[in-house]
Amino acid sequence: MTSPELQADTLPSRDEAAYVLDRKTVTSILYALDTENRDKLVELMEPLHPADIADLLEQVNAFDRGRLLRLYDKEFDGDILSELDESIREEVIAALSPSTLADAVRDLESDDVVDLLEDLEEPQQEAILDALEEPDRLAIQQALSYPESSAGRLMQREVVMAPDHWTVGHAIDHMRGTDDLPYQFYHIVLVDPRMHPVGQVALGRLMASPRGTPLSEIASEEFQIIPVDQDEEDVAYAFNQYHLISAPVVDADGRLVGVITIDDAMIVMDEENESDMLLLAGVDDESSLSDTVINTTRRRFPWLAVNLLTAIVASLVISIFDETIAQFVALAVLMPIVASMGGNAGTQSLTVAVRALATKDLTGSNVLRVIRRESLVGLINGLAFALVMGIIGVLWFGDMTLGYVIGTAMVINLVVAGLAGAVIPVILDRVGVDPALASGTFVTTVTDVVGFFAFLGLAAMVLL
Amino acid sequence: MTSPELQADTLPSRDEAAYVLDRKTVTSILYALDTENRDKLVELMEPLHPADIADLLEQVNAFDRGRLLRLYDKEFDGDILSELDESIREEVIAALSPSTLADAVRDLESDDVVDLLEDLEEPQQEAILDALEEPDRLAIQQALSYPESSAGRLMQREVVMAPDHWTVGHAIDHMRGTDDLPYQFYHIVLVDPRMHPVGQVALGRLMASPRGTPLSEIASEEFQIIPVDQDEEDVAYAFNQYHLISAPVVDADGRLVGVITIDDAMIVMDEENESDMLLLAGVDDESSLSDTVINTTRRRFPWLAVNLLTAIVASLVISIFDETIAQFVALAVLMPIVASMGGNAGTQSLTVAVRALATKDLTGSNVLRVIRRESLVGLINGLAFALVMGIIGVLWFGDMTLGYVIGTAMVINLVVAGLAGAVIPVILDRVGVDPALASGTFVTTVTDVVGFFAFLGLAAMVLL
Repeated sequence: MTSPELQADTLPSRDEAAYVLDRKTVTSILYALDTENRDKLVELMEPLHPADIADLLEQVNAFDRGRLLRLYDKEFDGDILSELDESIREEVIAALSPSTLADAVRDLESDDVVDLLEDLEEPQQEAILDALEEPDRLAIQQALSYPESSAGRLMQREVVMAPDHWTVGHAIDHMRGTDDLPYQFYHIVLVDPRMHPVGQVALGRLMASPRGTPLSEIASEEFQIIPVDQDEEDVAYAFNQYHLISAPVVDADGRLVGVITIDDAMIVMDEENESDMLLLAGVDDESSLSDTVINTTRRRFPWLAVNLLTAIVASLVISIFDETIAQFVALAVLMPIVASMGGNAGTQSLTVAVRALATKDLTGSNVLRVIRRESLVGLINGLAFALVMGIIGVLWFGDMTLGYVIGTAMVINLVVAGLAGAVIPVILDRVGVDPALASGTFVTTVTDVVGFFAFLGLAAMVLL
Repeated sequence: MTSPELQADTLPSRDEAAYVLDRKTVTSILYALDTENRDKLVELMEPLHPADIADLLEQVNAFDRGRLLRLYDKEFDGDILSELDESIREEVIAALSPSTLADAVRDLESDDVVDLLEDLEEPQQEAILDALEEPDRLAIQQALSYPESSAGRLMQREVVMAPDHWTVGHAIDHMRGTDDLPYQFYHIVLVDPRMHPVGQVALGRLMASPRGTPLSEIASEEFQIIPVDQDEEDVAYAFNQYHLISAPVVDADGRLVGVITIDDAMIVMDEENESDMLLLAGVDDESSLSDTVINTTRRRFPWLAVNLLTAIVASLVISIFDETIAQFVALAVLMPIVASMGGNAGTQSLTVAVRALATKDLTGSNVLRVIRRESLVGLINGLAFALVMGIIGVLWFGDMTLGYVIGTAMVINLVVAGLAGAVIPVILDRVGVDPALASGTFVTTVTDVVGFFAFLGLAAMVLL
């Protein structure tokens, strides 16, 4: 326990940048590095949380990162590795001396080691497994045998449990007599003689109850069991939906094999949200700010290539009407407006649908209503913008017919945008494709093609 | 404590839809509603979690929702209100009988009542405050006096605390003697005589330690103090970054006034992520799947109107070159490709930057490096697609010059896209505007204008 005076340091400042590594600290650290002042470096890094040190390593360039790791090596803490972005983990592990790496890994909880190992290449995995003691190594190899992104990978195997017939006094005495309680736990899991979890007792309730109280009497009402092969996305959903703090994990026979805590679920939820957001924008969800230029270029290229293909399809539609355009250049001037409005309206519907699918708010019970709603919204906004754009068309080019044409095309494209934006992610979800992954391209292809075709086709019919 | 047999019901099925209200349940509930079978309805709803009942109310249409609330009224639980989406909260509150509403609200924890009240209109706020007992009402009015979206609104005022000189035995006896411990708590906050928090003890550590141990000896190493006026977004960031489970909240004088727990931080983080995702797509972040068609149309309209303005700006650029287009219709066919590629590349850079700003990974220390990286990525991908598109242009239209023109325009637009995608959100963030809110429009306006201008301008110079 530090004294009150020391604690004052941890009081965050009230400005916006409350929790960021401030620029001054980073500059001082880089100066210590330039002057190879190891004592100063260690002194500056000492108050930083491992998560902040990881951020620091991500934010400096590769050259400074290498120097920093060499100078700081012996002080390196295992938790920094857990916090590091995957894109530079291998680089950092390779830069650490073997003895530092071994010490660092030995300090970690089993779920953190699993999380660390699953993204590494074979030789680095071996190096880390070799650093562990026999029982830890076996436990981690067992965890790695569960499917990727499953509850089995996420859980910690250390569970505090008690037979369901015990009293509060039994449980407290048992815990006082146990040497290696997990670092963090919030519930005692009650198990029957077959090791099936049958309830859990919050530590706060345990604390507040007389020693003679049977545990079963103070078990929480809220209690969710997680199957070991459940997808981590569903685990995170359950924690968020039911406000769970920790939940027991069971194998196929219903036997207790581990426990998942809310902090791990929170990380998964944040990653899933990030992934949806990036995928919707056509960015690989494994990309990171610390990727090199070449890696970033490689990751972005395929998405742009797909976009090029769809843009060419839209151009082919335009080329059907090249003679019409040659006669009425106003069409070339106005046609991007119809496509752009459709693309935007489609993206709106799409994003709402993708998010609602992720939060399980869009289900079989309301899918038809949502699709109808999106189409109707497209229709009403389409009519409004048809009026605006029709007037602009007439005023700009002094041609009433052109106003009709752009207005009608606008209505058609906005209805199609609403419909496509809602239907496409639902279909992708049903066939097991991540709706965030592919919807955007489909929807804008549809709105580009329909937009150009409706506008230019109508113009060809009416104006020629 | 229910028996093991009953618990088997709570074991989720292993399919994808693990935690969704399944369609069969919804259909049965609607059937009970049609037949006005109240007993059956209550029986079907009984096993549902309040969060699931809230989802049910959101997913059925307004007519069924009204009928359901009338038939279920007396059973209505306050937690359902907390879980309900804001878009239908007022409607549900209006549909409940005054006595049900009063009972429902009295059961809630203070932070949940605050969350409920802050989005309601004056008369409904009054009705709920009147239902509360005097001390609760005062406590909630005090909480509402903190700024919106601040830690003060998020915290619960019930804190389990202990003087920092107490032992484990003192703390346990004190808790056993306290009637109204909070429903959930995970730490005991240690305070000095001035009521300043100086540490916290995890219940697990408390449990496992002999009665004579001083609390200060088993205080957690990780300990963050949250100022009461801190923005909830920063609170959520701290919980996620430092893996906090609960954290004490202090007033301007550093005195303990409440505690925030990770489940509340998780909800804020999810909302912030949702908000960024929706704003990036030009969707009002308060919109909801249960909004009516008219409300949805109204919420989407302004964003589309802004898009229309920017699309018109792009059209004005095209109209400068209308004579060139009239002579070379191939330009009209190809020009959307340049704009579309720029828009996509810009959105990629932009989304990465917005996310990195939200996670505080993009800071003063690396902002120049990130901007340089995005521009370089744009340059390299631009060169690659210039080559591809140049060849396509030559093959399609048999015109070497056209190939050069589209290739050069592509390089220019992709570099600008990377630059604008990284710089615009950073500038917005610096001037205090949410970068997710306005970046998208700025970036695509830039890429449209630059794309059309570069392509058509080069064509006018070279081809005429």
